[in-house]
Amino acid sequence: MSSPEDGLGQLRDALRQFAAERDWDQFHSPKNLASALAVEAAELLERFQWLTEEQSRRLAPEELAKVREEMADVLNYLVRLADKLGVDLVAAARDKIRLNAQKYPVEQARGSAKKYSEF
Amino acid sequence: MSSPEDGLGQLRDALRQFAAERDWDQFHSPKNLASALAVEAAELLERFQWLTEEQSRRLAPEELAKVREEMADVLNYLVRLADKLGVDLVAAARDKIRLNAQKYPVEQARGSAKKYSEF
Amino acid sequence: MSSPEDGLGQLRDALRQFAAERDWDQFHSPKNLASALAVEAAELLERFQWLTEEQSRRLAPEELAKVREEMADVLNYLVRLADKLGVDLVAAARDKIRLNAQKYPVEQARGSAKKYSEF
Amino acid sequence: MSSPEDGLGQLRDALRQFAAERDWDQFHSPKNLASALAVEAAELLERFQWLTEEQSRRLAPEELAKVREEMADVLNYLVRLADKLGVDLVAAARDKIRLNAQKYPVEQARGSAKKYSEF
Repeated sequence: MSSPEDGLGQLRDALRQFAAERDWDQFHSPKNLASALAVEAAELLERFQWLTEEQSRRLAPEELAKVREEMADVLNYLVRLADKLGVDLVAAARDKIRLNAQKYPVEQARGSAKKYSEF
Repeated sequence: MSSPEDGLGQLRDALRQFAAERDWDQFHSPKNLASALAVEAAELLERFQWLTEEQSRRLAPEELAKVREEMADVLNYLVRLADKLGVDLVAAARDKIRLNAQKYPVEQARGSAKKYSEF
Repeated sequence: MSSPEDGLGQLRDALRQFAAERDWDQFHSPKNLASALAVEAAELLERFQWLTEEQSRRLAPEELAKVREEMADVLNYLVRLADKLGVDLVAAARDKIRLNAQKYPVEQARGSAKKYSEF
Repeated sequence: MSSPEDGLGQLRDALRQFAAERDWDQFHSPKNLASALAVEAAELLERFQWLTEEQSRRLAPEELAKVREEMADVLNYLVRLADKLGVDLVAAARDKIRLNAQKYPVEQARGSAKKYSEF
């Protein structure tokens, strides 16, 4: 999100404008945005909850379209929260992958469901 | 996520490699990834749950560092799920902002907490 | 929760006393309790997220003990929220089962995953 | 849930019958029920997410009715999961309150938001 030209930077700007035009900044405390993000993540999960894992791998097009929309909601709230807190999302994600690589060394983690609790 | 050079494209590739090296693709069904995403979103929310909205706006540096890490987890699972489902996250988010702009016209939505249920 | 002698009524009273002794009522707004409940539900889900459905049916004793503890957290926050809002949980649940019975008539719902979105 | 006459025992029996009549037991693995529970908890949270804490304390009757319904969904899935896992919910909740009383001694916990992370 460093340069305004990239994808997430553009989303951030569009979401800022969206909220400003509607005077919705007053509702967008980090606490509230974190709630909204969790709610959207649950709506995404709802799409999968009664499917088998196998079924979740081959969604019908109209179901995928709904899943895509819920994913968009999650990303939009995440970008909005990052904007409010001054967090660079991609840098944070990169740092976390590096941390996890140390926490789960390849040799030990290999295919192990037992040790598996990724993040 | 269209070009491999951009931020989310790089994350996607790093996460692919991370899972492949550990043979963890077997756990990464869309159903399971959606669960993991919801769990991480809740861990993010946990950081805010007893704060007032005002407190959530001025986090201490060490608290912000933890929040940043939870946000990273959310993004990483979201990018991983998008990869599995072939979803372009930024395009999806852009489409959703456009949809919401129609659903909440500026004149009607202005500052209204009553009509407010954003996504 | 009508009579103080029954199980949920006793929990309600114990939780009231617990909060009063620690002066924690100030944190227990319905908004905050609903957040805490969602967080605990996610911690419960976390225990299952990488298991297959089959594995989730035969938990090892030490894993079941942890699951049981997360379920307790969910119930405790739910009872606390019900107390704050004056809701009779068992009556509410009974009403909802009746509603669902009308929404999903036996003949039509039978074994159908397609129509299935229970609540 | 020990005796079939009490509130939760009756709910358990009603939910068993509800699922059996519709042949829905096949969907009710503990993994799936935990997902459904998390989704319902998020739907409950959704009702509060843009309210201030103060507003959450004085819900309008029609809003409270919706909140009550979401609470019912949470309880029903929790009771269903407990039935599948053989967990006595009230005993589990009682045990957890006892554990928390040791973890947060009254003298130290008193009114402290700082140490506060209840469960």
